[in-house]
This record gives sequence, structure tokens and C-alpha cells, in this order.
Amino acid sequence: MAKKPFPLSNVYGLLEPGPVVMITTAHDGRQNIMTQSWHTMIEFEPPLVGCVISNRNHSFGLLLASRECVINIPTVEIAEKVVGCGNTSGASMDKFEKFSLTPKPASLIGAPLIDECYANLECRVADTSMVDKYGLFVLEVVQAWIDPAVKDPRTIHHLGSGSFMVAGERIQLESKMK
Amino acid sequence: MAKKPFPLSNVYGLLEPGPVVMITTAHDGRQNIMTQSWHTMIEFEPPLVGCVISNRNHSFGLLLASRECVINIPTVEIAEKVVGCGNTSGASMDKFEKFSLTPKPASLIGAPLIDECYANLECRVADTSMVDKYGLFVLEVVQAWIDPAVKDPRTIHHLGSGSFMVAGERIQLESKMK
Repeated sequence: MAKKPFPLSNVYGLLEPGPVVMITTAHDGRQNIMTQSWHTMIEFEPPLVGCVISNRNHSFGLLLASRECVINIPTVEIAEKVVGCGNTSGASMDKFEKFSLTPKPASLIGAPLIDECYANLECRVADTSMVDKYGLFVLEVVQAWIDPAVKDPRTIHHLGSGSFMVAGERIQLESKMK
Repeated sequence: MAKKPFPLSNVYGLLEPGPVVMITTAHDGRQNIMTQSWHTMIEFEPPLVGCVISNRNHSFGLLLASRECVINIPTVEIAEKVVGCGNTSGASMDKFEKFSLTPKPASLIGAPLIDECYANLECRVADTSMVDKYGLFVLEVVQAWIDPAVKDPRTIHHLGSGSFMVAGERIQLESKMK
């Protein structure tokens, strides 16, 4: 995909709707992909994101050591790969190879972008003070990319136990909210 | 609406998809409604939810003083009321009256349920240690209610600037994820 830089001030609009994301990490010659839904915006700009990652996940150690990751946002077209990455552990395989996903170099950090995702958010860890208690990392998005060809991304949203909602129609309301 | 108790162990499936929610608070004879999208699950059971509420919001003081709130989940049928609550401040009005929403008593806490929402999560504040820095409250869901007549709730998901995505089709995949 031919991605373009995306304004950091608009990143909240990609994560607020609550899509399933794929978090990529890399450290010391190893890389991994983790499927995840437990994230929230914390600040508009610079964009801060709270992400809950359990220490039972292989990605936990890679994120803590490298202090960098990419939040990749997939759409329903690759839903099987998204779920495949969620069902498996990176401790015993390279998920990029296993699920035929394409790692692309990021611009500012070491973790790779997933090319097949329509949006990619390069992040640095900004605060680990809530990691011990809750597994909650505060991430700062330092560079964002988007595929300008994708106008209404059909993101997927986890309802539990393998059931997902696919993004439906869009409506416009007279909102004063940012 | 005739609501039924909903298992606490399944609450994550209501919030993980990332719907816009309406948070109700009450303290010292005042009550309020706040429209919000910055929330994430933190723990399955007991269900812990992280909610970002700025100290610029009227609800901030009510929540901090009462240490209780309800997370109400609306659907597109009342989208105009949801946005209305987001566009206004409870400092100068009672939003239940203004937007013709019905407050119903909660079972365990003082803040009211919004009857027109298909799901209501009664919460107590569990941790305020991240409030000063990020406005991030950790809430524990202590009682959940659902309208059993609503099978596929058409929740709304904020894309920014008054644009919303409405929950679309549901798909089932072979997921091992909870």
C-alpha cells in the first residue's frame, strides 16, 4: 500500500471508534504482532494512547525492552489474519511469516509497520508507571500513516468469543465535540 | 425498558467494541450526563474500566466527590440526545430534563441509570492515582443491566467532528481469544 503521513492532531478519530488493532514490536532481532482491543485515547496532541498488555503476552517483554511499538489498524478484509495473530504466541513463531503479513520499516522507530493495515501509528512508550499494576502502557504517537485510498475503512470491533462487529454506515450529527 | 441483570464476567464484550457511552453521576442533589468515548477495559473480572474525564467537565467534580457513576450505552435511535449531552454543560442545566431522558434508580449506587440506553453499568471508583496526570479514573463495574430485547445493538462510534460510525454486520471467526 502507498501510505501517506497522517496529521497527529487527527489520530484520535482513528482510535476513538474502538477498532481491533495489531500491535507490532521488535527487539534484539525478534519481532512480534499482538491482536488487541483494550486501548483508549488519553490526550489529543501530542496523541497519547493507553494500551493494556498483559505480562502473559510475548509482546510485553519486547515492548518493555524496546519502548517502541506500532499500532496497526486492520480492516475486515484481513480478519482471518487478525484472529490468527490473536490465537497464537510469538514465542514460538514469526507471525509475519506464518500469516503472510508484510513488515515495512517505520520512519522513527524500530518496530515494523504491517503493510496490509490501512493505518499505522508509530509509538514510543511515554509512561510505564501503571504497567506493574494494570499492564497499562501510555504510548505517544510520534508518526502516523494512512492509505488515502481507503475512504470508509471497514474496521472490526470485538464483541467477545470470536464474535466481531464490522463498521457500518456513517452518520453526521451537529456535534460541537472534537 | 425492562432490564435484566447481566453477568459481570461478560461486561468486557459490551465495552471492547468501543461504543460512545453516556456517564451519569450524582452528588449532593445534583446529577449529570456526560458523553464520552475515551474508555478501555483494564481487567475482565471483576470488570475494571479506565475512563478519561477531563477536569474541565462538570462531571469530573461529581465523580470525584461521589466516587460512583453509571456507564450507559446508547444506540443510534437516541443519537441526537447523545450528541446533545455532549454539546452542553451540566453546570447550567439538568440534561435529563433538557433531553427528555429518564433517570432510573441504580441498585447499588447513587447515580441514576439512563432508561433509554440498552445497557447500564453501575460503577464505583477503584483508583484515582492517575486522575491528576491524565484524568484517568479506574472504575469497577459492580452491577450490570441489559435490555434482553435488544439483540444486535446499533451502537455509535465517534470518528471525530460529529461523524459517527454505526455498528454494522456481525461475523463469527474461530477465535481462541476471550
